[in-house]
This record gives sequence, structure tokens and C-alpha cells, in this order.
Amino acid sequence: MVVARSIALKAVNTASLWGLNRSRFGGLPKVQTVRALSTIMSPPSKAVVYEHHGPPDSVTRMIELPPVEVQENQVCVKMLATPINPSDINRIEGVYPVRPQVPAVGGYEGVGEVYSVGSAVKGLSPGDLVIPSPPSSGTWQTYVVKDHEIWHKISKDSPIEYAATVTVNPLTALRMLEDFTTLSTGDSIVQNGATSIVGQCVIQLARYRGIHSISIIRDRAGSDEVKERLKALGADEVFTESQLEVKNVKSLLSNIPEPALGLNCVGGHAASLVLKFLRQGGTMVTYGGMSKKPVTVSTSSFIFKDLSLKGFWLQKWLSADKAKECRDMVDYLLRLAQEGKLKYEMELVPFDKFHSALEKALGKHGSQPKQVIKF
Amino acid sequence: MVVARSIALKAVNTASLWGLNRSRFGGLPKVQTVRALSTIMSPPSKAVVYEHHGPPDSVTRMIELPPVEVQENQVCVKMLATPINPSDINRIEGVYPVRPQVPAVGGYEGVGEVYSVGSAVKGLSPGDLVIPSPPSSGTWQTYVVKDHEIWHKISKDSPIEYAATVTVNPLTALRMLEDFTTLSTGDSIVQNGATSIVGQCVIQLARYRGIHSISIIRDRAGSDEVKERLKALGADEVFTESQLEVKNVKSLLSNIPEPALGLNCVGGHAASLVLKFLRQGGTMVTYGGMSKKPVTVSTSSFIFKDLSLKGFWLQKWLSADKAKECRDMVDYLLRLAQEGKLKYEMELVPFDKFHSALEKALGKHGSQPKQVIKF
Repeated sequence: MVVARSIALKAVNTASLWGLNRSRFGGLPKVQTVRALSTIMSPPSKAVVYEHHGPPDSVTRMIELPPVEVQENQVCVKMLATPINPSDINRIEGVYPVRPQVPAVGGYEGVGEVYSVGSAVKGLSPGDLVIPSPPSSGTWQTYVVKDHEIWHKISKDSPIEYAATVTVNPLTALRMLEDFTTLSTGDSIVQNGATSIVGQCVIQLARYRGIHSISIIRDRAGSDEVKERLKALGADEVFTESQLEVKNVKSLLSNIPEPALGLNCVGGHAASLVLKFLRQGGTMVTYGGMSKKPVTVSTSSFIFKDLSLKGFWLQKWLSADKAKECRDMVDYLLRLAQEGKLKYEMELVPFDKFHSALEKALGKHGSQPKQVIKF
Repeated sequence: MVVARSIALKAVNTASLWGLNRSRFGGLPKVQTVRALSTIMSPPSKAVVYEHHGPPDSVTRMIELPPVEVQENQVCVKMLATPINPSDINRIEGVYPVRPQVPAVGGYEGVGEVYSVGSAVKGLSPGDLVIPSPPSSGTWQTYVVKDHEIWHKISKDSPIEYAATVTVNPLTALRMLEDFTTLSTGDSIVQNGATSIVGQCVIQLARYRGIHSISIIRDRAGSDEVKERLKALGADEVFTESQLEVKNVKSLLSNIPEPALGLNCVGGHAASLVLKFLRQGGTMVTYGGMSKKPVTVSTSSFIFKDLSLKGFWLQKWLSADKAKECRDMVDYLLRLAQEGKLKYEMELVPFDKFHSALEKALGKHGSQPKQVIKF
């Protein structure tokens, strides 16, 4: 799809794009001058593309891509919703370790409805609800054509906005609770950045498993209200950073055991607060660095407290042959969302307002809920 | 032994010591006013003791302790040599996580010759060379009486100064090479603080196993000479910290693969240099913090480079039911020392010069070799 479409992109835009696309997608252009009558073509697609890495609000633009052939093993999906994730922004900036070759369509996850299928495709029919799983580049457009194996059929009852966002954030929360320590009912975990979607999912998934959660949030106006919201999701304890300026943070815990697992998406002082809570032999997993400050650890934390520090990156986890497991977990998470057991705040924005959603996602208007594009 | 002796200590020194000793050693005083003729008594012992935690050069003093009874399961050992380790100093200062109850005799490892054995002791005879294994408090004295199970008989050909120092440092080096990653012939490791005894042992044990080592040393006068000495021990590459102020430290390595394991006993910038060398998915183990600066790690090191950071503390390892394994490894290390395959710099000092050795061990006279007391 993208190969064929890149020709159009070249035709209307830039003469030098073709070479890049060929190297990116590895194949030769499959342009057929004579087509059989049965050839299925996608509708034209409206897409957010970027031709250079740089600031997303200046390098992205919305263009119309011409129809492409849906080959026999491909499926054309009419996209219904797709989020703007921080990692999407980093990919466009070119600061992500995986740097998409430009020109590229933005986006990495989303949900859509099958529009048409190639002649050899089995198991998917028009009208099916699908997500790319593992997630896959190029979801910021109205029609996506990709190999049938990329599409995972999900329950038609799945709430669209959760289906669009289920992989990157909720799956990260689920894996971090599973992959680093063995947590049993009654154990506890501690996390900073608790108002993030991952943070909200951690609270709910922990509670669902009978695990206590201690959440750390920034000091800010309205922090009492934030605490109440997180407690309503199932958080056992929520502290602002300044509340933890005490010698022994553990004295603040009532009957919650010392946590064996800490999750850090902030860095700097907020990471040190997570370490303060951890029990002897505990593990802190870093999955983000919102403060842009590094993690600082005392020597005695390593030697005498025996703490371990690790990292989690969903994209690496997914590349480790976890496709089947990923789909099973996505189904599990979507069932929870459908039952109202997993929820988080999102703002749905129509596609033609993409750039104002992008500005919000870039943090240009202060703290904002996750921006999810609705096509 | 220590219980009985503490009575003497009390008699000559402080009225309030007894209670502490009873709580420390758990038993009631075994003072017998009428003894059988066959009672074995130890010789009087000259010991370095401290009654309060504090600066080692002001709170320690050398006193003579009276003879004690060698009970039927005990062994009296005439000490031959014992080192002054940094952890001994920290124990006296009271800053070690395991805080010996005072009054106490200093020291934690050493080697001696069996002087006499209790009537029920089998397998040990006067003249046998022994070390306390796992190591055990109170080795800074001329005669030590302890339960027979504490003493590990070693080959009479063991070089005394290595036998006195084999557990704390060389065993730490050995365990760190074994316990965190699976290293195969041709792999590599990186370490800072390479001139320490642990550092010197790491170089030799790695070489012995066919593993390359990259060593980082401080910038100082005579660093070229230090490099040569470490290379003579088997180091593949030795860099001063300033040599590593380049964008890509890996470009400095000729044919050595990127290391999977890093060892840090310095902290601060020197720890960051170890992290710079590590390969994707590598592990850094912290076992010391000579710079007294914490370890600082970027978020991307955790997420995208997938580094793990851990700590190693021999005392914790030993407490995990490793007594048998400890002795086997001590024998292995002593064989290497005897064959000249494991060596490190030490300064042997007579016991009556203890306090000048202590000053050197405290760093009051600049960098000094390991101080080992020879009785």
C-alpha cells in the first residue's frame, strides 16, 4: 500500500521521495499498467504525513493519497480512531531509537473496520472491527491497506476509543506488573506519574489482581481532586511529592506492605521517591522520563538494600516474538474496558481538527487528556 | 570465647559492658568457679578492641585479654595474619548495615594455625592452617577461640597473606563474574576502580576464563605505570577517565566485543563511564562507592538500551546458605594464588604497628596497598 501510495506522494510533492520509500519497504514498485477487472482498489485516503523529521507541528501536514490496489493477501481498513501518543511525536522528531524512513504516515496504533479484503484473505470480512497487532506504523489516515496478518479481529462490542489505545499504554501497564517480580494478592507496588494513562491502568490492573498500589503525583493546584479521582479508580494511597519529604516514607503507609515493585516514568527526584518506598531486594522499572532528568541512585541502595533497576520498552517486548501473546492480552484488556473495569481519560477529536489535537499532545496548552482522533 | 573474655574486658574497663555482650551472644555467662583438671585454656590474647562506634583511629585500642576456656566443641587458633578492610572500618564507625554490638574485637577475616582443640573436636589438629569461613568477627587478635564449625582447614602450602585476604575481596570478584550474566570465552567485561584488590582479581579471574576485561582508572600521576601493571596482570584495555571523554567509547576498543557486564565500585562519573561501554541489555553491578557520589542513569539507558543495574554485597550472599560453596571457592582461589595466577599488592605490617597500618587503611597517607597485619 504505502509503496504504491508513495508514488502518488512523489507525483504530487517531491521528486526525491521514491528512493527512500523503496529502501524502506524493501520491494520494487508493483505498478501494473494493465489490471484485471477484479482488481480491488482502496478509496483515496486522507493522511497526516511528514517528509522530514522535525517539530511535529511544523513538519506534518494532511494530504490526500490516491487509491491503491488491495492485493490478494491484503486488507483495506477504514480507520475509526487513533491516538496521538508521545512515542508518535518522538518518531516524527526523529529522536526515537526506531526512526521511520520519511516520507511516512504518522501514528502507530488505532482501530478500524474492515472495508475490503483481497481475494486470498480468509477470516476477515468487511465490517469486522480490527486493530493492527502488534501495532504498526501509519495509522493516522482514513484508509489503511496492509497485509491481512497484521490485523487482529476484536469483539464488535469493544469500545472504540479503548480499542484505539489499548496496546501502547494499557499493555505496558500489564506487562510491567507481570514481567519483573512475582506479585501475589496482598502485595503492593509504588509508581510515580500516576495520572498518566499507564499510571491509571496500573492502579486498576493492580486492584483487579488484589495488589495494593501507592501512587505519587506532582504538587499542583487541584491535587486533592486528582487524589480522589485516582482513589476512585482503585488507588490505595496517593501522595504528592511534597508529602513525601519525610525521613521515613514507610511510616505513611497504614497496612500496606512495603512494595516489591516500583514503576518510574518521571525520573529525577520522583524516581528517588519510588526507590525510597521499595522494600529490601525490590525492583524499579523505568518506562519514561517525563521530567527529562536522569535517575540517581545511592551506592547503598544497590549494595545494602539490594535494589535492582531495569527498563521496559513495549516495542522491544513486542519484537521478541510475542505477537500471539500480545493479541491475547489485548483481548483481555478490551474485555476489562468493556466491563468498565479499565478506564482512562481521553479527548476525542475529529480528524480535521488534527493539528489542534497535536498541539495539545505536544503540551502547548498545559496538561491535557490523551488526544484520540476520531475519523 | 568472646563471652568469657568480655568479663575480663568488663573487669578491667567498663562496668556496663556485660549486658551488651549477653544480648549480643545470646547465652548466659559460662563462668565456672571449679574446673576439671582437663580444662583447656587459651593463651592470653592481644586484641584490637573498640567500646564505642566512632572514628577507628580514636575508638580502637590494643589490650590484653585473659585466657578463656576452650570448650569441647571449640578450637583455639593462633592468628597469623588479618587484613584491615574498608568494611572493618565501616563496622567500627557504626555506619555498616550490620552493626556489631560493642565492646567488640575488630576484624572479619584472617588466617591462623590451630593451637588447641576442645575434647569433642574432630578433623582439626594443632598445626592445621585455618580461616574462619564464612568470615566471622573478631580476627584482630593473637588467639581466637570459636566453635569448630567456623574454621575451614586450608592447604598448608597456602600463601599466608592470600589466605588472610581471600574471602572478602577475591570472592567478591569471583561471584560478580559468575552471578549476573552468563559469560563465555571471548566475551568481555568493563570495570572501574580497577586498581582495587577486587579490580585486580577481576582482571586475573576474567583472563583465566578467557574473558576480556576493560579497566578504568583515575587520572593521576604515574597512570602509565599503573596501566602497565594492570596489563601485566592480564587486563586487555586500561583507560584513564579522561581518555574516555569521547563521544563513542566503543571506538576505542580494537577487537574486544561490547561488554555485557560492568562492575562499579566508584559511583558518580566513573559509573557513567562503565554504563557507556555496556552493550544493549547489559548489566552493571555496584559493589562500592569510593567517590561517595551516587550512580546517575539516563532514562534512555533503561528504556532503549535496556540496561539493568544491580548491587552485590558478599555478606548478604554468604548469609544465603552458601557456607559450603564459599569454602569450595576459597580453596579454588587459594590454589590460583599458590600457582601465582592470582596476586595483588599488600603491605604486611607487624601487629604492634597496628595503628600506623590503620591510618594508612583510613587513607590518611594517600593511596596505599592493602594493609595486612602479620602477628
